[in-house]
Amino acid sequence: MIVVMKEGSTKAEVERVMDVLKQKGLGVHLSEGAETTIVGVIGPKERVRGLGIEGMPGVEKLVPVSNPFKLASRAFHPDNTTVKVGDHIIGGSEPTIMAGPCSVESQDGLLEIARAVKASGAQMLRGGAFKPRSSPYSFQGLGEEGLKYLAAAREETGLAIVSEIMEPGLVDMITSYVDVLQIGARNMQNFALLKAVGKTQTPVLLKRGFANSIEEWLMSAEYIMSEGNPNVILCERGIRTFETYTRNTLDLNAVPVVQHLSHLPVLVDPSHGIGYARYVTTMARAGIAAGAAGVIVEVHPKPEEAWSDGGQTLTLDQFSDMAEQVRQTFELVQSFTKQHSVV
Amino acid sequence: MIVVMKEGSTKAEVERVMDVLKQKGLGVHLSEGAETTIVGVIGPKERVRGLGIEGMPGVEKLVPVSNPFKLASRAFHPDNTTVKVGDHIIGGSEPTIMAGPCSVESQDGLLEIARAVKASGAQMLRGGAFKPRSSPYSFQGLGEEGLKYLAAAREETGLAIVSEIMEPGLVDMITSYVDVLQIGARNMQNFALLKAVGKTQTPVLLKRGFANSIEEWLMSAEYIMSEGNPNVILCERGIRTFETYTRNTLDLNAVPVVQHLSHLPVLVDPSHGIGYARYVTTMARAGIAAGAAGVIVEVHPKPEEAWSDGGQTLTLDQFSDMAEQVRQTFELVQSFTKQHSVV
Amino acid sequence: MIVVMKEGSTKAEVERVMDVLKQKGLGVHLSEGAETTIVGVIGPKERVRGLGIEGMPGVEKLVPVSNPFKLASRAFHPDNTTVKVGDHIIGGSEPTIMAGPCSVESQDGLLEIARAVKASGAQMLRGGAFKPRSSPYSFQGLGEEGLKYLAAAREETGLAIVSEIMEPGLVDMITSYVDVLQIGARNMQNFALLKAVGKTQTPVLLKRGFANSIEEWLMSAEYIMSEGNPNVILCERGIRTFETYTRNTLDLNAVPVVQHLSHLPVLVDPSHGIGYARYVTTMARAGIAAGAAGVIVEVHPKPEEAWSDGGQTLTLDQFSDMAEQVRQTFELVQSFTKQHSVV
Amino acid sequence: MIVVMKEGSTKAEVERVMDVLKQKGLGVHLSEGAETTIVGVIGPKERVRGLGIEGMPGVEKLVPVSNPFKLASRAFHPDNTTVKVGDHIIGGSEPTIMAGPCSVESQDGLLEIARAVKASGAQMLRGGAFKPRSSPYSFQGLGEEGLKYLAAAREETGLAIVSEIMEPGLVDMITSYVDVLQIGARNMQNFALLKAVGKTQTPVLLKRGFANSIEEWLMSAEYIMSEGNPNVILCERGIRTFETYTRNTLDLNAVPVVQHLSHLPVLVDPSHGIGYARYVTTMARAGIAAGAAGVIVEVHPKPEEAWSDGGQTLTLDQFSDMAEQVRQTFELVQSFTKQHSVV
Repeated sequence: MIVVMKEGSTKAEVERVMDVLKQKGLGVHLSEGAETTIVGVIGPKERVRGLGIEGMPGVEKLVPVSNPFKLASRAFHPDNTTVKVGDHIIGGSEPTIMAGPCSVESQDGLLEIARAVKASGAQMLRGGAFKPRSSPYSFQGLGEEGLKYLAAAREETGLAIVSEIMEPGLVDMITSYVDVLQIGARNMQNFALLKAVGKTQTPVLLKRGFANSIEEWLMSAEYIMSEGNPNVILCERGIRTFETYTRNTLDLNAVPVVQHLSHLPVLVDPSHGIGYARYVTTMARAGIAAGAAGVIVEVHPKPEEAWSDGGQTLTLDQFSDMAEQVRQTFELVQSFTKQHSVV
Repeated sequence: MIVVMKEGSTKAEVERVMDVLKQKGLGVHLSEGAETTIVGVIGPKERVRGLGIEGMPGVEKLVPVSNPFKLASRAFHPDNTTVKVGDHIIGGSEPTIMAGPCSVESQDGLLEIARAVKASGAQMLRGGAFKPRSSPYSFQGLGEEGLKYLAAAREETGLAIVSEIMEPGLVDMITSYVDVLQIGARNMQNFALLKAVGKTQTPVLLKRGFANSIEEWLMSAEYIMSEGNPNVILCERGIRTFETYTRNTLDLNAVPVVQHLSHLPVLVDPSHGIGYARYVTTMARAGIAAGAAGVIVEVHPKPEEAWSDGGQTLTLDQFSDMAEQVRQTFELVQSFTKQHSVV
Repeated sequence: MIVVMKEGSTKAEVERVMDVLKQKGLGVHLSEGAETTIVGVIGPKERVRGLGIEGMPGVEKLVPVSNPFKLASRAFHPDNTTVKVGDHIIGGSEPTIMAGPCSVESQDGLLEIARAVKASGAQMLRGGAFKPRSSPYSFQGLGEEGLKYLAAAREETGLAIVSEIMEPGLVDMITSYVDVLQIGARNMQNFALLKAVGKTQTPVLLKRGFANSIEEWLMSAEYIMSEGNPNVILCERGIRTFETYTRNTLDLNAVPVVQHLSHLPVLVDPSHGIGYARYVTTMARAGIAAGAAGVIVEVHPKPEEAWSDGGQTLTLDQFSDMAEQVRQTFELVQSFTKQHSVV
Repeated sequence: MIVVMKEGSTKAEVERVMDVLKQKGLGVHLSEGAETTIVGVIGPKERVRGLGIEGMPGVEKLVPVSNPFKLASRAFHPDNTTVKVGDHIIGGSEPTIMAGPCSVESQDGLLEIARAVKASGAQMLRGGAFKPRSSPYSFQGLGEEGLKYLAAAREETGLAIVSEIMEPGLVDMITSYVDVLQIGARNMQNFALLKAVGKTQTPVLLKRGFANSIEEWLMSAEYIMSEGNPNVILCERGIRTFETYTRNTLDLNAVPVVQHLSHLPVLVDPSHGIGYARYVTTMARAGIAAGAAGVIVEVHPKPEEAWSDGGQTLTLDQFSDMAEQVRQTFELVQSFTKQHSVV
């Protein structure tokens, strides 16, 4: 952390800042420029923040210089992390493909989808049983009944199951059904929930909040990991911008940046990311080209009859095509990175 | 909801869209322009969304035209809502002033602050016992112990107590101590939590998420109200933008817009909103000039010794001055609105 | 400027960075933390940027610490700047009120507006003769004819004239008519235009671009000032965010921040800032409460017949009321700041 | 355009709105819902905007439904447009690669870069002679001297030349040197400049402004095309978001969206888009996977000695690798789209 003094700050003001820092056991390092005097602080950022240094006389601002994440940091863990789910390795030598309906609707419908996405090469079945909906009047999901349908679909097809968890009190129940717990974008900083899933060993798919910085996203991974669960899979699903021709703005920049900063595998969700079915396949393969380990997409035999998110949902045929494009793009990227050193 | 067809869409495509809508019991209304054909849909937005209409052949996009909130809407409840907390009426004829430390730290320190803010005219004492922190390594609050300190401060000063709730499982415990439950920005779309506080009758201070639209904010109020709790107080606390000279961007536009759309009272939080103590008083009075019913601010006798958020915290003297400016500005605004019809 | 080295960077990498900086005549200052090594650079930011330091082995990132503006900086010029236009002083003891139609439409219509806004207390008449329109098919303004109408209105009413300039080649012609040159938001970084108006002594109303940082805004003022024209008036007119209930988001945070960083006067434009007439008066007085020196607003006798921007335009009666609220709020703020030291 | 009436608006208010529209020669179409009454307007959006309908009693808001661009629209011109520059076809069967230094610095240095990028497969040489810099104290480019160096490099290598134009008055001079005129992000809505380049037949590379919507971008293309120049090449170069780990956020969503809405070819600029050399190759190939017709990137033999933008500049070796990855990814995407119908 760097403390930047105001132009014209006095020697006494600088010394008072240094005293406060030293009293808290932090190292200090003075650097006087022609116009700006700065005090370098040696010690954890979270100890400096909140000291109120910004409010002290003569202080202009605080500037962080080091990253606050530890367990999630590539500096701490240089090799890529892989997460094993059933027989499949996320972050391994083949792309991860998670597919399924936005909401679980019926046992038969879910089985039809499960069989089809399995046939097209998906390793995992996604489906919402507890749905975060911005309106209290919208369908909120089938609840535990939906999880039972998912488990039955796994039974028949062998696909692993991914489903969303929205409250800490349901961890035991939901982990008894699913292979991967999904934390949705709106809950990325629901710290009670992060701690609760961190106490399990179940892999967690951590979606990025739609206005959360990459640093905050990795700090939320840190919450889960610091509780003892190292099985975190990141998922970029679109940020909120001023653009109205798309539902969100899938931020593919986040993929290489996260891979530079962290060892955790990262997927992309083009369905929510761009929000229109007509663009999903293109953004899925672009995500893979950006270095993602895989994709999660919404699929329905008849999107116009789906109970939620129909407009961004692929048909079974479109999905089959997308899966093929994802595989070929992944293979091409693998061929590039084999010849090159990692980021 | 309006369905906009692609230029060049066929008659058959338009008819298929109308059929799907009619089958779901929705009214339809066709309008053929020179270039664009649109289908007006009569019925609730949440029923149209999710039908997958966007994915149907010939469809360009869906455009919502009516607001999805009902209980929170001024159309449904034309008069302003006031919320009574102890003897004070939020949304009434004097400005609400909530003040206190970011985190509750000690009984004595809290009492000192409570006495001082009471003397300067605050009606409520705010203080975090359960703290949402982006780092798992930061101080997470004193928990229930902190609530006991707050209750003791109320006992001595008569100030009502406002404190944050972060998980549904703690509703009973926390409501046994506080007068107002605060939902923080990061939990604005934690729907399980909204439902849980909606089942109480305790007033809820609902902060706007830092990237949530005004519509989503009012829909989160709707979640609380639809469970039976009408005592919702909105609080604007800054949105996230590209600007780096401020910590957030306090969105004062939201104040008159919310008052146009809704009957609920709205406060502003200039401490988090702009994030630097040197600007807090100015933004507090600007918030009141924008029509807010009051403010919530962070206060500490020695901000440089606070355990969190010191940089945006007012000293006791600064607070006293701010409270005076807020009162005078509120009085001025009242004199304007007495002469005029409501927005 | 601070160079932050990667965790694990080598001694040789650090030395190479220091060598490159020293060769360019910059001072360097090494600080080795437990995890992060940083190199402080003494010398102008614009000389460090562009050295490609970010691309050197072992370097994580560059972090600027000092502000790049000089002439526009309060550090350079501690007292407030005022700009005299006719008899009126912008940044002085009474609020500046600029009002008029979005576009100049006819001589008679303009005169009617000019007389009315003069009667309600405006000191300046605004009106677009050259209009920036996002569509080439929209009305582009009357051009020089419009400026003649404006000059005639000045002749009759004594109001000073403000009008927009869009290209360097028109500086001589437009300055022969107007008292204040307006640079619109879309041209805030049209550097050729900034240089051209900087070569005159005509006051310049510099609107903030809708996605420009405060630093960039002050750097654009710096462009004008560095060419020799010190008469710069800043104008906040709304930034672009995700919100759709308003046309833009008037950023009132910018007002106190600019006053902290710079000595230049700052106005607000609530008409473009929020974009709906029903909210303009409220945001005008909130802008004054935030410390603005005045407002610029759109006024038309019959907004529904205006040729552009009708939806955000005040009627003559609404304007009269707004002007009164602005004056009273300004007086109240003056009474506060008289008792207090400047920001 | 749709006019949405307030809930509770009266019959008389609705009729007055319809009358105003009809008087302006616009078609109207009434649709009364249970809660919301809407008036559909048949006629150009730019005629409805500015009528002040939003300000009329009983009106809640205006909602546009059709796209305002005509010449740039795919509805108007269903086939892809290609732009021929020398022997190369932008939007054709091989990817366009434009490469070169941020600023032209010297004749020898430029020739070295030109030979190298030609050898690696670039068809065009980019280099700034007139530079838009946020600081007036930064290097502003060599001006016409730089254009002479570029022309000499074309002479020797056969590469076509791309360079930026910043003011209308320089159109004749700059077009006498370059093959492609670049309009930079900050000038995307410099309408005087758009009109000026629209009067030539020189191809224009139109960069997207960093906070401009896709609609505004296509409207700026429309400005150029409506003056008679059909040779517009779009270029996505990053939007501004809250993220600080990247310099901008390269918006790859824009690529398929633009291809859906428009027939114009679109390139991506990963150098400015993400702003760090370490990520440029990844984002270049992701841009191609998203469907871009090519890339424009910054290259320098020794980025740490470049006069501007060194941190995002590729070395000659990195460029050679990037070009290969771009070609292979382009080929893969071509193999997909051959089997499929166009978006």
